[in-house]
Amino acid sequence: MNTYHISVIPGDGIGKEVVPAGLRVLDAVSAIHGFGLHYRHYDWSCELYKSTGKMMPDDGIERLGDSDAIFLGAVGFPGVPDHISLWNLLIPIRREFDQYVNLRPVRLLAGVPCPLVNADKKKIDFWIVRENTEGEYSQVGGRMFEGTDREFVVQQSVFTRHGTDRIIKFAFEFAKQQKRLRVTSATKSNGIYHAMPYWDERFAAMAKGYPDIIADQYHIDILSARFVLSPERFDVVVGSNLFGDILSDLGPGVTGTIAVAPSANINPERRHPSMFEPVHGSAPDIAGKAIANPIGQIWSAAMMLEHLGEQQAASTIIHAIERALCAPDRRVTPDLGGNCSTDELTDSIIGNLK
Amino acid sequence: MNTYHISVIPGDGIGKEVVPAGLRVLDAVSAIHGFGLHYRHYDWSCELYKSTGKMMPDDGIERLGDSDAIFLGAVGFPGVPDHISLWNLLIPIRREFDQYVNLRPVRLLAGVPCPLVNADKKKIDFWIVRENTEGEYSQVGGRMFEGTDREFVVQQSVFTRHGTDRIIKFAFEFAKQQKRLRVTSATKSNGIYHAMPYWDERFAAMAKGYPDIIADQYHIDILSARFVLSPERFDVVVGSNLFGDILSDLGPGVTGTIAVAPSANINPERRHPSMFEPVHGSAPDIAGKAIANPIGQIWSAAMMLEHLGEQQAASTIIHAIERALCAPDRRVTPDLGGNCSTDELTDSIIGNLK
Ligand SMILES: CC(C)[C@H](C(=O)O)[C@@H](O)C(=O)O
Ligand SMILES: CC(C)[C@H](C(=O)O)[C@@H](O)C(=O)O
Repeated sequence: MNTYHISVIPGDGIGKEVVPAGLRVLDAVSAIHGFGLHYRHYDWSCELYKSTGKMMPDDGIERLGDSDAIFLGAVGFPGVPDHISLWNLLIPIRREFDQYVNLRPVRLLAGVPCPLVNADKKKIDFWIVRENTEGEYSQVGGRMFEGTDREFVVQQSVFTRHGTDRIIKFAFEFAKQQKRLRVTSATKSNGIYHAMPYWDERFAAMAKGYPDIIADQYHIDILSARFVLSPERFDVVVGSNLFGDILSDLGPGVTGTIAVAPSANINPERRHPSMFEPVHGSAPDIAGKAIANPIGQIWSAAMMLEHLGEQQAASTIIHAIERALCAPDRRVTPDLGGNCSTDELTDSIIGNLK
Repeated sequence: MNTYHISVIPGDGIGKEVVPAGLRVLDAVSAIHGFGLHYRHYDWSCELYKSTGKMMPDDGIERLGDSDAIFLGAVGFPGVPDHISLWNLLIPIRREFDQYVNLRPVRLLAGVPCPLVNADKKKIDFWIVRENTEGEYSQVGGRMFEGTDREFVVQQSVFTRHGTDRIIKFAFEFAKQQKRLRVTSATKSNGIYHAMPYWDERFAAMAKGYPDIIADQYHIDILSARFVLSPERFDVVVGSNLFGDILSDLGPGVTGTIAVAPSANINPERRHPSMFEPVHGSAPDIAGKAIANPIGQIWSAAMMLEHLGEQQAASTIIHAIERALCAPDRRVTPDLGGNCSTDELTDSIIGNLK
């Protein structure tokens, strides 16, 4: 029997509520499909920061290094500035483990009401491939003339050939493997003078190697509008760290709610563990009420199992989610119009595993 | 009789079709409301670039300097890289004339079908206040190790206190003047390490001076999703050059089409002319077919008249647009589901001026 070692980091806010839900589903599905899961739990969080001054211990990255995967909830909570909490936990994990692909599905899930007119006629089902280690997320820069009228801040974005080429290549390879027709590049080369023309140049060069795949590109502004007006036209959308971030919240918005959206932070070469986490954040407004929607976390668990090679178990989870959502007497959390708790929705998903 | 001197730059693609439509409406409305318009026409465009190597003559900015306003169509066309065309015409005009406010309404227009379920129950009616001279739109940066595996590009964003404070202040003053409840800041301080925490800091400082206005903020990713899921909650949204750009295409997407959306590039101190242009671009795919929707350009004409102090004429235009769109035998362009030409829709709007 295969046994996988999973590092578990619930983090902050509703992360502490939806991660246990995810683990319950993982336990149930592993029993059905006959593999083992061994968890190591870490309380790294804003709470820890407040008592120790650190989001994780100094050897945090080292401790995670030999796990098969990392299962994370959400990071960030009022009281600790976001750039402190994120740059000392989530972002270092992505960087240190070279999880340069952030892969996020955008898909109309059966049973989730979609805000678009005629949504049932639209086949919304595509993937966002987001660069996850460089680009606009950079700590290079700083402030000058602080506290005076002449004060200014410089913020650098860094686009390397190494980083740009590998994410674009991943997008094309992924499209090929998934038998998708089209790869769409998110750009803004008319405004972002140096970085985006470079991105376009590398995208065009890479596209030449994939003559069977349609390569197109849109500036991020009009692309955002297209996500709303014609989401059915996308297959694989590749974007920089920032553009991928924006599009992967907008996409789930267009399909009804970001509460159900999952993500995979992948090191494709498998030299380091990959990390799986919902797209949503720690949601301080509903934290502690036991009503958070656990589906984003549970779907992330499915992506984790798929990454570990347990495809069947992954599909079992996704079908169970959709069955739970479509049941005539469905038991869902308030954000989906129900009045059930996180645990009740989780139970209903577990009951639909088979 | 007041007479206004307007510099007219149709630019590229459908700009050359919708600007004449806009001028016809302006002529008609000025006759009704009793003021004069004097136009100076400039053929600055990608076409000019191809024959002369310049998007505009060396003294272009100087020539525009004494006009009361600039009426622009669209810039950019295949054959000239976007960063060349834009950085040599549109962006220099915004910068040189210190048009630091880009003001863009997001509003459900009567007669334009909205892609959202229950749109009729949503009161979508808000303003985007976009910083228009600095931020992510910067030519500072460059490439190193060109042509090798070590190649990289650095792109700087620049946020000055001067530039940040004045746009945020404008947003609050505008909210006050328009009797709006709330100013929402678009940020990404959890990812963009230096620039966005600074933006937040200045926003918080400015908000203190406006205790009667609710100040809130969202990271740009979740804000994009909220534009789709709860657009009725916004009054005034303030963002950086890039975030404002994205949100002001997304907003019109959510209200049905970007073809009707207008914008005003304003120098609030009136030391320099302001510029009025539709949000849409040159649309090479439909250019030359005489079917472009002229409403974005015509609504921009209304914003121009409002800026010039001709409020009544401005409302006359907006009402005429809505009446033309709501007429039982409405004559609209293909993008709105009709089969009329640019000129026919323009005629119908002119026929509804009163
Ligand atoms: C054409 C482009 C440079 C421009 C911008 O990004 O400012 C356009 O998208 C706009 O919104 O006016
Ligand atoms: C929390 C934040 C830093 C993060 C990001 O921007 O990457 C989040 O929005 C995400 O999409 O995973």
